[in-house]
Amino acid sequence: MNASTLRRTAERAREAARVLSTVTGAARTAALEAVATALLANEPGLLAANQRDLDEAVAKGMEPAMLDRLALSPTRIAAMAAAVREVAAQSDPVGEVAESSLRPNGLRVSRVRMPLGVIAVIYEARPNVTSDAAALAIRSGNAILLKGGSEAKHANLAIGEVVSEALAAAGLPADAVQVLAPSDRTELVELLQFDDLIDLVIPRGGEGLIRFVAEHSRIPVIKHYKGVCHLFLDASAPLEMAVAIALNGKTSRPSVCNATETLLVHAAAAERLLPTLASALAAQGVTLHCCERSLPLVTGLANALPATEADWAAEYLSLDLAVRIVDDLDGALAHIARWGSDHTEAIVTSDQTAADRFKGEVRSSCVMVNASTRFNDGGELGLGAEIGISTTRLHAYGPMGARELTTLRFVVEGEGQIR
Amino acid sequence: MNASTLRRTAERAREAARVLSTVTGAARTAALEAVATALLANEPGLLAANQRDLDEAVAKGMEPAMLDRLALSPTRIAAMAAAVREVAAQSDPVGEVAESSLRPNGLRVSRVRMPLGVIAVIYEARPNVTSDAAALAIRSGNAILLKGGSEAKHANLAIGEVVSEALAAAGLPADAVQVLAPSDRTELVELLQFDDLIDLVIPRGGEGLIRFVAEHSRIPVIKHYKGVCHLFLDASAPLEMAVAIALNGKTSRPSVCNATETLLVHAAAAERLLPTLASALAAQGVTLHCCERSLPLVTGLANALPATEADWAAEYLSLDLAVRIVDDLDGALAHIARWGSDHTEAIVTSDQTAADRFKGEVRSSCVMVNASTRFNDGGELGLGAEIGISTTRLHAYGPMGARELTTLRFVVEGEGQIR
Repeated sequence: MNASTLRRTAERAREAARVLSTVTGAARTAALEAVATALLANEPGLLAANQRDLDEAVAKGMEPAMLDRLALSPTRIAAMAAAVREVAAQSDPVGEVAESSLRPNGLRVSRVRMPLGVIAVIYEARPNVTSDAAALAIRSGNAILLKGGSEAKHANLAIGEVVSEALAAAGLPADAVQVLAPSDRTELVELLQFDDLIDLVIPRGGEGLIRFVAEHSRIPVIKHYKGVCHLFLDASAPLEMAVAIALNGKTSRPSVCNATETLLVHAAAAERLLPTLASALAAQGVTLHCCERSLPLVTGLANALPATEADWAAEYLSLDLAVRIVDDLDGALAHIARWGSDHTEAIVTSDQTAADRFKGEVRSSCVMVNASTRFNDGGELGLGAEIGISTTRLHAYGPMGARELTTLRFVVEGEGQIR
Repeated sequence: MNASTLRRTAERAREAARVLSTVTGAARTAALEAVATALLANEPGLLAANQRDLDEAVAKGMEPAMLDRLALSPTRIAAMAAAVREVAAQSDPVGEVAESSLRPNGLRVSRVRMPLGVIAVIYEARPNVTSDAAALAIRSGNAILLKGGSEAKHANLAIGEVVSEALAAAGLPADAVQVLAPSDRTELVELLQFDDLIDLVIPRGGEGLIRFVAEHSRIPVIKHYKGVCHLFLDASAPLEMAVAIALNGKTSRPSVCNATETLLVHAAAAERLLPTLASALAAQGVTLHCCERSLPLVTGLANALPATEADWAAEYLSLDLAVRIVDDLDGALAHIARWGSDHTEAIVTSDQTAADRFKGEVRSSCVMVNASTRFNDGGELGLGAEIGISTTRLHAYGPMGARELTTLRFVVEGEGQIR
């Protein structure tokens, strides 16, 4: 795509956003339901497009885990449609009056929710991001530009076509959702200059891609670089709960950003908890990277290694876990403040005072008490779906749903007031 | 200040923010009251510092209007103290539980408000910005770096010293409020690179300064470039209200960003409204820049000129007003969409349908129905004071008070839940 064609694409998105902002919530709900139906109805075409991606990926020697992320199936297409339907069922954020009060001079001051305008999502691999992000954009009255990775090109373009056609059939602008063909980074940089047409860029994927987008964008970017999530076992942590939450946080899906990467253990509980916990983790194939104090407590395990400082910073995304004994809650808070990524931190404790301090003093976007770090997920936290996760504090912090794609403007009603 | 000294200043702010985040709201309220008392108690010192600024300004030949902006007086210091006290009296945003719900698996998911961290405000001229911004930062639990213009150097530094001493005496970190000495733009650019220490930059002042900050900052910037505010007189606009709101919007304080800059008149009401309105404006010394259709209706006025396209884009900040007749409400909406700056737009109408369409379709940060554009002001809208105005939709849109200097994080409480 040459630069002027790319710009026209963004201009069409801007115009679609303008039209979309005049459409009722009921019309957007109906359109989302039509999109869900269309995804199911077009299963054969979507699978065929996905097969072309898979064939190309196999020919290039893609690893099985990545092939699995890329693959569609009737079950996965049904899950995509169900996610769209769930977003359709959400309350409509647009036009919501978040506050309204009467000033002493009789002015009625309200804050009314409206769409941001045009959103661009830059992402890798999984094709379900295409329909999830499109659904959240339509729910929140925004137009969206979707630029996925080249591995999923055929599936993404096919999903985009199905979505656009369904929107058009439902009377909404087809250009409200546009899937851009993958390109080299020159075209991506070009897109990131259109700050007059695009209101927000959300990059999703590896840290390299995200840093590249953040560095080259003139448009505001909401992002998270990585998830170095901590689990702290307090002095009072029940053994059974500690084992269950540690295992779940590390092993249920080690490759995602809400996986637990570092285990911090209160010194007073280390001897009680660590040996059993280490055996349970080892039995699941987890390699432990242990501090000097914890290593002697897990001797006998083949997969326990001495940790270096690099382990405290590591986002392993694998069956590896850093383990460190800290003197107390303050030690845990200090470790998290130094090494955390503002993503997710959890405490296991029976002590309400410790829980309250942890909740109050940890500054990360999501803080868990007696629950797995894996619950930092838009669906699990009640947002329906998520378009991304923010670990920067501006605009949104944590997983972002439809409401995070809106803003509040002031509406003031009077009877002729002047100052 | 050399680069490493500047960096240490920002590091001290970061550390102060950490301490501040552990302080209760009551302690911050008490500290703000101490700041207000200290401003009054130090009136002689503040006036003396301001006199040095004024002497230097007179020596440089500063214009009377600018000198007036720069000048402190016992009345103005009392107003600064009163503004700090008003912020002290506001409800504390930190720790507010904005939402809380129970998930089907028993997890309690809450969204809890917390400070952003460290805020930098870059501003020109008026010394009251120093105490206003400091008060909003303390109210919201943030540390703040204040970099004011060189004209107000002595007063700003003196205010900063009074504030810091009062904070320290109240047991809060003195470094929570730091006034930086004015410098050349090299040092400003240096400061704008510290994205690991500063969370948000708010530039206030002329468009040149704001564009400079936006272009050179690695830190997120919230800003507005200008206020091209429109007043639309609908077909049903009552003459008396139209005249009062137009006069107030243009003449009560023409140099500020919420002044009315363009008057749009419904064609069906132009003959009824414009002659009287134009005379009233002319009597206050306003020069009208009129479109082809409106010029014949104001003949006889010496200060009516033909408008060019540049007038539709103009932020005059003076006793000048662009005047254009539009066919109807759609014409007004189209003009605003094309030429507006997303700041403030007002309609005068007796027609509820027209009011509703205007409210619903204008996308600016503040929309007024039958009220002057001059009400777009943090104090007037109930925010107590304002640290700036945003005309970009990310994070905040419109005037920003203490709450806009916070973010919501997720706090999740369970009894051992795993996924």
